[in-house]
This record gives sequence, structure tokens and C-alpha cells, in this order.
Amino acid sequence: MAKSLFQVKFLESIVAVAREIREAIFSTVPRDTEITKVDFEGPKVAIYTRRPQVFLENDGELVKKIAKTIKKRVIIRGDPEKRKSEKETEEVIEKLIPAEAGLKNVYFNDITGEVEIEVLFPEKVTQDALNAIFFETLWTPRVLRRPPVHSRTVKEIRDLYRASKQERIDFLKKLGYKVYRKPIFPTQMVRIVSLGAAREVGRSAILVQTPEANILMDAGLKPTGNGDELPLFDLPEFDVDDLDAVVITHAHLDHIGALPVLFKHGYKGPVYMTEPTLHLAKLLLEDYVKVSEREGKDPLYSMRDVNSFILNTYTMTYGEVTDIAPEIRLTFYRAGHILGSAMIHLHIGDGLINIVYTGDVKYARTMLLDPAYNKFPRAEVLIIESTYGSKTDVLPSEDDAKLELGKIVLETAQRNGIVLIPVLAVGRAQEVLLALLDLMKKQAIPQLPIFIEGMIDEVSAVHMTFPEYLSATIRGMIYNDENPFTSENIHVIRGEAREDVIEKRPAIILATSGMLTGGPVLDYLRMLADDENSSLVFVSYQVEGTLGRKILGGLRKITFSDPSGKAITKDLKMQVYRVEGFSGHSDRRQLEAFIRRMEPTPKTVILNHGETSKIDEFMRYLGSEWFKKKSGLSFEVRAPQNAESIRLV
Amino acid sequence: MAKSLFQVKFLESIVAVAREIREAIFSTVPRDTEITKVDFEGPKVAIYTRRPQVFLENDGELVKKIAKTIKKRVIIRGDPEKRKSEKETEEVIEKLIPAEAGLKNVYFNDITGEVEIEVLFPEKVTQDALNAIFFETLWTPRVLRRPPVHSRTVKEIRDLYRASKQERIDFLKKLGYKVYRKPIFPTQMVRIVSLGAAREVGRSAILVQTPEANILMDAGLKPTGNGDELPLFDLPEFDVDDLDAVVITHAHLDHIGALPVLFKHGYKGPVYMTEPTLHLAKLLLEDYVKVSEREGKDPLYSMRDVNSFILNTYTMTYGEVTDIAPEIRLTFYRAGHILGSAMIHLHIGDGLINIVYTGDVKYARTMLLDPAYNKFPRAEVLIIESTYGSKTDVLPSEDDAKLELGKIVLETAQRNGIVLIPVLAVGRAQEVLLALLDLMKKQAIPQLPIFIEGMIDEVSAVHMTFPEYLSATIRGMIYNDENPFTSENIHVIRGEAREDVIEKRPAIILATSGMLTGGPVLDYLRMLADDENSSLVFVSYQVEGTLGRKILGGLRKITFSDPSGKAITKDLKMQVYRVEGFSGHSDRRQLEAFIRRMEPTPKTVILNHGETSKIDEFMRYLGSEWFKKKSGLSFEVRAPQNAESIRLV
Repeated sequence: MAKSLFQVKFLESIVAVAREIREAIFSTVPRDTEITKVDFEGPKVAIYTRRPQVFLENDGELVKKIAKTIKKRVIIRGDPEKRKSEKETEEVIEKLIPAEAGLKNVYFNDITGEVEIEVLFPEKVTQDALNAIFFETLWTPRVLRRPPVHSRTVKEIRDLYRASKQERIDFLKKLGYKVYRKPIFPTQMVRIVSLGAAREVGRSAILVQTPEANILMDAGLKPTGNGDELPLFDLPEFDVDDLDAVVITHAHLDHIGALPVLFKHGYKGPVYMTEPTLHLAKLLLEDYVKVSEREGKDPLYSMRDVNSFILNTYTMTYGEVTDIAPEIRLTFYRAGHILGSAMIHLHIGDGLINIVYTGDVKYARTMLLDPAYNKFPRAEVLIIESTYGSKTDVLPSEDDAKLELGKIVLETAQRNGIVLIPVLAVGRAQEVLLALLDLMKKQAIPQLPIFIEGMIDEVSAVHMTFPEYLSATIRGMIYNDENPFTSENIHVIRGEAREDVIEKRPAIILATSGMLTGGPVLDYLRMLADDENSSLVFVSYQVEGTLGRKILGGLRKITFSDPSGKAITKDLKMQVYRVEGFSGHSDRRQLEAFIRRMEPTPKTVILNHGETSKIDEFMRYLGSEWFKKKSGLSFEVRAPQNAESIRLV
Repeated sequence: MAKSLFQVKFLESIVAVAREIREAIFSTVPRDTEITKVDFEGPKVAIYTRRPQVFLENDGELVKKIAKTIKKRVIIRGDPEKRKSEKETEEVIEKLIPAEAGLKNVYFNDITGEVEIEVLFPEKVTQDALNAIFFETLWTPRVLRRPPVHSRTVKEIRDLYRASKQERIDFLKKLGYKVYRKPIFPTQMVRIVSLGAAREVGRSAILVQTPEANILMDAGLKPTGNGDELPLFDLPEFDVDDLDAVVITHAHLDHIGALPVLFKHGYKGPVYMTEPTLHLAKLLLEDYVKVSEREGKDPLYSMRDVNSFILNTYTMTYGEVTDIAPEIRLTFYRAGHILGSAMIHLHIGDGLINIVYTGDVKYARTMLLDPAYNKFPRAEVLIIESTYGSKTDVLPSEDDAKLELGKIVLETAQRNGIVLIPVLAVGRAQEVLLALLDLMKKQAIPQLPIFIEGMIDEVSAVHMTFPEYLSATIRGMIYNDENPFTSENIHVIRGEAREDVIEKRPAIILATSGMLTGGPVLDYLRMLADDENSSLVFVSYQVEGTLGRKILGGLRKITFSDPSGKAITKDLKMQVYRVEGFSGHSDRRQLEAFIRRMEPTPKTVILNHGETSKIDEFMRYLGSEWFKKKSGLSFEVRAPQNAESIRLV
């Protein structure tokens, strides 16, 4: 009964909203605008017209006026009847795109009237040139960067969207209607439910619930020595059918690994993330499926589910404000953790409450990325990760880490050994690559070959596709064609026998996975385990239960599967090092600084994504009289368990 | 998909359990027991036999052996073929029931083979006499007390069960199968969700959730000046269809008022409570429906829903242990609050965790009741009410309260005024009646008429039906026919014009409702408001938002509806008093003493049923170093909000 009544109200509200928007637009614009259609395109309102220049002239004055009236973002599309032919349009584009931009290709989307223009240097195309193309052809131009090296990921995502243009526009249209439905239940109550990563590291998943809407922030897996654990999707208050949106902070499996599971179980709604996150997520999730299949495991989901996630994704840049449900607005802020990583800011209930969820956050500058941002228009609740929440979790600076790594490399090279560095493909690998190249450039270590294996090269290609998300230094280098990731010291292993690779000594090998839970690194470790001249160097956080964590804990007898599948046990005789300072996580001082310098000061701080002992220590500290006195700040500190819910309003 | 798989597993498990029980019984009993049927009757296993004496001889040795084997309680029923005729059985009963027991009537239930024997003094019937009746007739005798004054409630409940015997046995059979289903999900997680009475007084409702089962403790309404509020039954983790059991602490509307709402929304499962609670609940809920109808309000539920609740109720005495879901066992303990009030003890997951929920609790002896019990076999979690949680909430003793009330009555009588006491029909009315009668007996006040109106007499009749739930003193008086509730000073108002009643001065009037939210008391208040010789005496807790609370807060202008429905505003000139000490709630010292003397000491104490300021104060106190030092106890203290969940395991 209640459900069907809800359906009726829902449909009524949809019709009413669409009518209201049309009426508001027509009462705002002059008569000569020649609007031929108004429709939702995701959270934006698309106005089709025969005369786009009327809307966009005077710095888009009319578009701004409409947006202010209907309180929604507006895009202008050319009327299909008036569009130039594709051939004519191509000629216009070739004429107006400057040669130094490096035009590579042009793709037409006859449904939306967009034309994608792939160039090597988008920053060399001016807005004036784009407007000129639009006004002349009535095709809306969209400039895409063609990466300097081939990226399978970038190509496949673009191909998929082009091949699914009808499906995609249907999705966006439905999304708009759903986002702008009139709320049936007033937003008087807001709570979060911890589905994962509460008092643990792994399977990040936080459900934000109001009487009207359900938003899931992150959908990760927890890596363990023994398969991966899902978030608590079986809690009765979580229902895929009632989910309005999934919002993703960044592309690590402990934040995205369970995302296709939602689609497998019937989720049809949107997923919000940055564009680099989309690309890295596709890469990691497809790899996850392939590895599961190769290892004969029952996969959690299939390639089809990964494709569903891609087609249901809506990407946003930092600072862009978007309605994602009635009375809920999303903004991403730079998190400093990996390429494209974002903090989630939710504005709920027209001023009722604002939540900031950091995801994984680095409140310090690294070679690769600028630090996390922490000034918000409003923020009453801060949900912050606590990976390094213990007071002993103070990490050396990246410069010190680089020096330490240099010393290890130098000594190992002098012993004619191999430096084996297990890395997460995304983030730490690029950071360590940059450090090694810099050490070589400064002649602190000899010019050694760096062998990389396990998606690292593809991940680097994605980095080159989105330089605007990188630090100013690296971005500048890429814009100036001094791309560090294409250094000739880097050798990508594809198909070469690993037995041959480890004979090329001295050398450095970077291989996945970063916590020794699988991947090519295990093969290298098996072959090098009893070589006391070689070194095993951990550069990232090792989750409890993983082989990496066990070795750091003193384990020196390791059982491997050899290529024939037989179990063999080896003594680990390599030199084992842990180089801290390359972490993409804030250390304890940085976490504290993030909170202290955050504007505005939150009223409630909720700790998650940390082992329970670290969470407890950090919670005690933040709640102590000592901290209150020192900082002059006072807020409530909470640290729920999984399956607990906390009421915010 | 998941749901239908669940259904299949559920049915399989039901069949398997029933088979296992039958096999276990047949392998335990000797060949000559002549069992003709085995079936569930609620959480008990009913064995039908031609030879009940084989099971019950030697102090029921064989029954005990079977119960131990199948780990379930066993009842023995006579085989229907062998039962004597009703006429013959009546003759046997008349022969074997002693004359001093006062046999009144006999009722047969041919489905279960039970015979109900109504007597005036059940305590005068021996177990030997009952066994003799059973063995001779093969009808299972059940002795019921016939109350010394007529009680409509008692009669109607007994009539309803008799008229619905087939429906009732079907319900009990299904209940048994459901309770003893094999768990599909292991009990690894236990949490409570606050649906009501968290940081407030009113609408008590706590959901206990495991992956396998859902138990609701209490289902109350929150009285406000403006209609009653339901618990948060619309939270997504609450679903009437998934509910295994509702367990009720006591019959006050803030703990039972929402119970019929569950049945209105399709609940078909059991409700557990004590027998007095069932009777008082019926009375209060039916009155609630009648009052709603009379006042032209849209009623929350109908009489039909109240009847459904009665037919789905399973009553238990204090100390009786009963399985209510796979891996969940319920025991009631005396709460000392009102007649039949109980604390709920849940043993979950075969030793995993034990929860004690006090409901409303009085940890002190009153005239009417013995104090709350607080020694438990095991208890890791205590959920305790905090109505008087502030350190200033120290109440006088009942003796002091009685003296104070006496003084007010005496002075008012000297002014020839009327003492108007708003009372909750259940509990406080009886306590105050006993106090007034005692004052008259001791000649501290003159013999005055006490007019009672609004169910109080019917509630007193229920008290007389269950003397075994009263204090030893009052129980003894009732057993000895010195029933205080039948005193000639008490005048029940039925149909008399209230205008006439207030002319009979000096006098005392006890009328409902206790917080001036409705009921006859409002009529008396309207008529007496400007009589400065009369007194208005509050003897119970006044919830925020009620008229009673407002008057205590200083309100002296009150708007009434006069009999014709017109609004009239009057100045309140009566003398207003608040006599504390008759409370059915523990005061702050008693709450603290309950916790300190509780055995075993809980690991977690959860505070509910209190205004947020009182909860916070009590929480700070229990968590303070001072308390820890003084008491030598240390436990976690929590105080969730409504809509929050707390994980216990």
C-alpha cells in the first residue's frame, strides 16, 4: 500500500517539476530565443535552440539568468534541424582549432548534438574558438585530451560511451527527473550508517539516510589473507532499490571494489566521482575480475557489471556543485591522496546540515599532488580517516623517505642485488617512480633500469591524460612535453619471462599488489626470497591479515605456489625494509593539523578507516582537555562500529 | 531471489525440527507410554497420551527427562478418545475441589483437552487434587481465580479465548514451529535500534536485531499536548513482516499504546507479557480507542486490532524461561513499577550476550508492590530508564509523601474544599488510594468520601485478580478477605452528574488522565478551577508538553471545552501541589543503587526513557572518575538518540 502510494506521488511530482521548469524558462527568456526543446540531461537542464548565440553572448548572460531563476545548471544545445552536416562541421573544426593544439580526431553524437574534439593539448584551445564552432555549426564542441602514450583505458571508456550514446542519454534524462522530484518526506532526520571501515581499514562504505533519500559514500572491499570481505550490504536498512546515489572518493579497491556488486544486485542509479577516478576504477575493477578468473575464484561480479557502473557514472570536477537527490547537494574537494581523489561534501536539507567525508586524505604536498583542501562554505560534521591515528604514527617527510630509499637502492646495487618494491598500482607507484627518477637525475643513485609490471604503465598513462589533477610541477612538465613517466629508464614488462628480468642486475622492480595479497610481485618474491643480496622494500600501509603485514611482523617462512601450482615454502633471506613517508595518508600530525585548520570548525568529528586501537587513541586525544586547551577547539568525537548508525539531525 | 530462497530454507528447517523432536521423544520414553500425538503449543511441546500418569508420577520424572533431552518445555495432554464426558468430568471436579476454594464454574476446551476451573481461592487447591482430576478424566485442569468483585476485563478476556479456541491453538502451533526453526544466519552480530524513548520520555520501543531475528521491546506512544507520537516504525530497518516477537514490560500507554498499530499493519506474531499486563493493556487500549472515537479523532487503530493483540499474546510469570526465536531466550523479572510490570532479560546466541531492559523500574518497596529484582544469571548489557536521572531528582520516601498528602487533605477539608488528584488509572491510583485509606485508618485525616472515576475501579478489580503479583501485605489482606480496594469510603462514579459530585464537600476525587491530557479530570478541573478552597495535587511524573507539566511550570490561565463544545478560558485559582514520593519510578539514588547492587555488574549501561538533560547528567556521573572510585565499578555508558543503533556484539 505505502509503496504504491509512494509511486503515484513520485510520478505526480515528476510531471509537476518538469512543467514548472519549462514554465519558468519561457517566462524568463525573450521571444526571439527560438527554443525547440527543454529536457533534463543528468542534473542539468538542456535547452535546445536554433539560436545558441542569444544565450551565450555577453559572457552567457541569459544562461546565468535562467540558471538563477530555475536554480539548476543549464546547458545550451543546437536544434538538430539546423545543425551543419558532419562533413561541413569537420571542416569548420579543422579551420578553427589551432595547429599547436594537435587535432587528432572528431566524434559526433547526433542525439545530444555534441561533437568531441580530441587534441593533444586542450589547454591551447580558446573558449572563443569553441563558441565560434558552436555558433557556426550548431554542434556543441567538447574538447578531450588525447594522452601522449596510448592508454587502453581511456580509449575503451570513450568507445563505450560513444557506442552507448542512446542508453547514456536515457540514463541522464531519468536521472534528472529523479534528482528533481519533489520530496515526499521532509528532511527532518539525517543519520549515517557504517556499513564498513568503521574501526577497521578496508571496505569503506557509509550510508547517509534521510526520510527521503539514501546516499552511499564509497563501496569498498576489505582485503584479507583469505578472500575479500564486502561491506554490510545485508543490513536491513540498506536496500539497493532505495539507493539514490553512490558517491566515490577515489579509485582504490577498499573504496570501489564492491561497486559492481551493487549493479549485479540491480542498482540502476548514478555513481558520482571525478573523471580520473572513473578511469582508474575501470582499470582496477576489470583487473580484479581477470585475476579472480585466473585464480579460479568465484568472482564477485562480471565485466558486465563493471560496464554498467561506467555507463551509470556521472563525473564532476573539484568545486562543482551538483544536486544528487531532493535537498541534497554534492561537491568534491581535492583530497591529495591519489590522482582524482576527492573529499565528499554533502549539503542536506536546505541548510539543515553539511557533512564532509574525507575518504583517504593527504594533508601535505607530495611530488605528484597538491595537498588536501580544507576550507568549506559550511561543515557541521567531519568524517575523517584515521589510518595513522596513533600518536606514534608520525611519518618522515617525503624528502627524508626519498633519501632513505636512495640509500637502500645504492647499497643493494653495490651488492649487485635487486630492489623489489611491492606497490599499489595507483598512487604509490607513481610517487616512488618520481622519487627514483629524481634520485637518478641528482646522481644520488646510479642510472638503473626500473622494471614495472602489473598495470603501473597503464595507470601512468591515465595520469598523463589528466594533468590538471596533478601538482603544478608535474603538470607543467607534462604541458611542456617533459613527461617523467615516459623516461627511458622505465621498462614495462609485458610477456618477458620474469626469470630473465631478475638476471638484469642491479635493478629495481616495482610490481603489484602492494600488500603481497596477489599479483606479479608474489612471483618475484618467490624467485628472490632466498637472495640475501636483494631487498624487499615496503612503501605503503599494510592492512592487518595481509602477507605484507605478516612479514613486517617478523614472518620469515613463506609458502608460495610455484608455476606448476605446487606449494613450496621458502625462507625469506632478502633484506626487508619499510620506508615510510611515501604514504598517501596523512600521518597523525597531518590529521590533527587538518582538523585544527579546517574552516569552519566542525561540531562533530567522526573517526573511521583505522584499526580500533588507533581510533580509540585518536578519539581520546581529540576529546581530551589537553587538546581542547591547546587548540581552543571543542567538538563531539565519535567512532561508531560497523552496523551502528549515528543520528546527525 | 534471496527472499524465496529464504522461504525454502525456512520450510525445510521447520520439517526437520519437528521430525527431530518426535524422534528424540520416542527414543527417550518407555514403550508403555501410549503417546498418540506430539505437537507444538507455543514454545512448549504437547504430548498427547492415553496414560498421563506414566509421565507425571514420581514428581514428573519422565517429563523432566524428555524436557532435558529435547531442551524444550513439555506439557502432557490426555488423548481425546479416552477423555471422560464433560458431565462426568464436572462431577469429578466437584468431588475433588475443596469447598473452601469456592468453585464457581467449569469450561471445557475440547481441542487442547484443558478444563478451566474458576474458583474464588485458587491457593486452596492442591496439586494432588489437580493430578487426580487429570488421571481420572484425561482433561488437563487449569485453575483460574474468579475476582471477588466483577471485572469486565477479566471476563471479556476469558470469553474471548474460549470463543476463539481454534484460532488460538493454530496460533500457538505456528508459533512453536517458528520459534524452533533452525537458524539460517549465525548470530554473530547483535544490535539495538532506538525507535523511541531515547533521550525522551514516551513511546518506548527498542528493536533488538540479529542476522536471524528481530525482537521489539515495548511499543508505546508519546503523549504530547497535540496528539500522540508513534515510535519510528518507518525506519528502514524495522519491518513488521520480519518481526519475531514483541515483548512488553508493563501496561502504560507509553509502553503499549502503539501495540495494536503493529497488528493493524499486518503483524501476526506473538506478544509476550505477564498476565496482569495483558489485562491492564486490554483495558487501557480499548479505552484509548473509545476516547479517540468520542473526541472525533482519527483513531490509530480499532477494537479489532486490540483483539488481535489479545489473541496473539503469550503470558509468562516472573522467572519463567522461554524460547522466543532461534538462539533467543526470554525471562521476565519483577520491576516493582506497577502490577505485572517486568524487566526483560534476553539471552542471545547460546552465551553470546545477555541484555537486561528495565522498562520502568522501582528499586524500592511500596505499599502495593515488592521492589525490583536485580540479580541475574548473566547480564552484559543493562538498558535502564532514567526518568529521574538528575542529581536533584531525589524523592521523599513514600511515608513522607503520605504525610504531605495527609496535610494537604486536612487543610483542604478544613476549607471545605475538594482535593482533585489527577492519576494514571494504573498504578499510582491504587498506591494513592492505599495511602488515603491508611491515613483515615490512622485518623490522620477525617473519613472523607473518595470519588474515583475513569477506569480506576476496573483496574483495582484486576489487581484483586492477581494478588500473587502484589506486595506480601496486600496479598495477605486479599487472601484473608480484608480487601482494601473494596473499602466503603470509595465511591465509584458511574453516570452521576459531575456537578453533583463536586457539591459533596469536603471530598477527594481521583480521576484520569494523570497528566491532564484528557479524561474526566479535565471536567473536574474546569468546574473547580476558580475555587481557591480546593486543591490540585500532582502525584506522578508530568511529561514535557502536557497540560500537567505546564501548570507545574506556572501556567495559570487554562482554556477548556465546556460541555457544549465552546472554548472557555479560566484562571486557575486552586491551590496547586506536587507531592513526590508516590512515584513508580526509581529516583536518582534508587537508579544508582540498582546499578551498583546489580549482579553481575554489566559491561555496558545504556540510558533511555529520560529527558536529554537528565540523561546527559546521569551519563556524565556514571562515567566519572568519582563514581568509578566510589563504587569500584567500571562500565561503558551510552545514551543513543532515536534512530540510532548500537552494536552490542
